[in-house]
Amino acid sequence: MREAYRVELDELAAELAGMCSMVATAMELATRSLLDADLGLAEQVIGDDAKVDDARAACEEHAYALLALQAPVATDLRTVLAAIHAAESLERMGDLALHVAKAARRRHPQPVLPDQVASDFREMGRVAVSLAREAEQVILSQDVEQAHSLEQADDEMDDLHRHLFTVIMDKDWPHGVASAVDVTLLGRFYERFADHAVSVAKRVVFVVTGRMPGAGHDEAV
Amino acid sequence: MREAYRVELDELAAELAGMCSMVATAMELATRSLLDADLGLAEQVIGDDAKVDDARAACEEHAYALLALQAPVATDLRTVLAAIHAAESLERMGDLALHVAKAARRRHPQPVLPDQVASDFREMGRVAVSLAREAEQVILSQDVEQAHSLEQADDEMDDLHRHLFTVIMDKDWPHGVASAVDVTLLGRFYERFADHAVSVAKRVVFVVTGRMPGAGHDEAV
Repeated sequence: MREAYRVELDELAAELAGMCSMVATAMELATRSLLDADLGLAEQVIGDDAKVDDARAACEEHAYALLALQAPVATDLRTVLAAIHAAESLERMGDLALHVAKAARRRHPQPVLPDQVASDFREMGRVAVSLAREAEQVILSQDVEQAHSLEQADDEMDDLHRHLFTVIMDKDWPHGVASAVDVTLLGRFYERFADHAVSVAKRVVFVVTGRMPGAGHDEAV
Repeated sequence: MREAYRVELDELAAELAGMCSMVATAMELATRSLLDADLGLAEQVIGDDAKVDDARAACEEHAYALLALQAPVATDLRTVLAAIHAAESLERMGDLALHVAKAARRRHPQPVLPDQVASDFREMGRVAVSLAREAEQVILSQDVEQAHSLEQADDEMDDLHRHLFTVIMDKDWPHGVASAVDVTLLGRFYERFADHAVSVAKRVVFVVTGRMPGAGHDEAV
């Protein structure tokens, strides 16, 4: 493969890693806006979402240019297509952080979350942000082992998500239906964010090994 | 463009149209299983989901082969990439129909839905199925006008979805929290299904016109 082409692929990977960092920060701030009813942080996440969309468009254009000008085959072709898929997942992760921030804004100055589930969301936020940061590392390192460790972290998210449902569904849930609906949707946003982070990592594994790891599990709890 | 290549593109479009038809049927049966607490239909949808996944993998392999062997540029390149994106959206639509069927199975023989919202879901099911069938037509016809009409139908879905929330959030909702949680998630599945159908149609518009219609609106109600 020509050196110039390798350089362009590395640039594309750097762009994707940058997107991971953006959505990790977005989810971090969105979670804080949710837990602290912080309208300023929520507005910041909402305002910054366009940057994620722009970064996705730039990645996609870069990938298109590579395909059109270099006509890669075999692994190189799959790498570029994996990048296109990863950019799509990362844009979606940005949307999900945006939804969390919008929920915080919608209820402001009321908190969205009853105290009873605040610690669950603090944990889900921590896992979500850490998954996005790990996906960033996987893109840069192409380390298959590290990619597998994301799946374990995603299991942790699934456990948190399931636990959340047992709390909401408990007949003694004292916070009413509207609150349960908010918590249900928010829980789903974190769980989907994690699924997409795993999907990004799996695409990297596919590029490195030529084999796609097991299908994603999006359990609709 | 070579004739053989045109034939292959047409085959790829036919595969995508076939996927539209599969997910339309899946959502139709899933909605009936939900409304009628019909375990047999739910099991059928659950069992058939693997076929959607296989069809997506076949589409993607077909698209990869086209890229590797023909190295298309310009509009032809964008057509193949749009097909890859569309196949991803269609697989996701299949997953969402699967989630509806799983909800019906989980609560069987109890109905999932209180009578109060059954007609909302009947309507959302009708709109969802019709969107998938319209997307099928758009793929085959590449008719930009028809693609725009999908966005109107999606507005109808958004209205139904918003109405559903006013019903659940009403302080006189008599069906309890667990039921509200089920209805919340199910409503989201229909709304996302519709969003993906619109996204498929938009990709077709992009291929035909070279311009992507306005960004999708996934409002996290």
